[in-house]
Amino acid sequence: MDAITVQQQLFIKMVINAWNAQNKDLNKCLDQLSEEQFSNEISPGKNTGIYVLGHLVAISDGMLPLLDIGEKMFPDLQKIFVDHPDKSGLEKPSVATLKGYLEAVNAKLGAFIFSSTPEGWFTRHTAISETDFEKEPHRNKLNILINRTNHMAYHVGQLVLLKGN
Amino acid sequence: MDAITVQQQLFIKMVINAWNAQNKDLNKCLDQLSEEQFSNEISPGKNTGIYVLGHLVAISDGMLPLLDIGEKMFPDLQKIFVDHPDKSGLEKPSVATLKGYLEAVNAKLGAFIFSSTPEGWFTRHTAISETDFEKEPHRNKLNILINRTNHMAYHVGQLVLLKGN
Repeated sequence: MDAITVQQQLFIKMVINAWNAQNKDLNKCLDQLSEEQFSNEISPGKNTGIYVLGHLVAISDGMLPLLDIGEKMFPDLQKIFVDHPDKSGLEKPSVATLKGYLEAVNAKLGAFIFSSTPEGWFTRHTAISETDFEKEPHRNKLNILINRTNHMAYHVGQLVLLKGN
Repeated sequence: MDAITVQQQLFIKMVINAWNAQNKDLNKCLDQLSEEQFSNEISPGKNTGIYVLGHLVAISDGMLPLLDIGEKMFPDLQKIFVDHPDKSGLEKPSVATLKGYLEAVNAKLGAFIFSSTPEGWFTRHTAISETDFEKEPHRNKLNILINRTNHMAYHVGQLVLLKGN
């Protein structure tokens, strides 16, 4: 194995560790919340727990096409949890359903993360053109994982507020 | 420049971009909050805005020794905003003071980030021994930046809740 590959593997490990740690925190928090707590607002007048959960599932689902793994598994979530705000009147799936969706999406993402090669992570994600990628090689698949980890942390910081004192 | 250095520079750029984006979001949020909003709780019974702000300054200040940049600039923050909870009775600096501290810490961190070499980022941080680092080379300075970016995102997700609807 050449020195570049060793360096890439080290870096990829750092990014995947951060992603896994964040998912672990999310799942731990989800397990601690009751159905009623999910229906509460994270702070008065703000999004409900179920909206934040659905939003996170929608964003993780959106990683499937971005990382060129496949189509979104639950494309309807985009409209309810990303394009529209919480109190849009659109019907939301139940917490149990959303948790099941999250598990399904994470299984697909996990299989990709486990099997992807170092070179693969440094290829462009699907939302950037080949021409732009030549100029901005940092906009690769691994960068998606870095950004989505931060996005998840932002919302985990909100979901934990639903827990009782 | 050899190929390893080019690869390292690419990784480092990805991580620094994420750190900078998070700091930008934090500063934007801080600018939008009034003194009164900082004294409010992010959600009923939870931490106040000023506690979360002080906590973020303390954690960024703690990066100075971890990254071997120097001593903490404001070591007293650790006790008030990390070791003790919000309602400990310990007196807190004002919002304006904490914002000034944040600026001072970020100036030091920024100078380090700007001038650090690719090789430097992949050296061990000061909280891991040389022996352990040989076994766990991912526990380097760049990994601190990845983890602290996620930590900041978690709390920015909370601070935004203080804004009016």
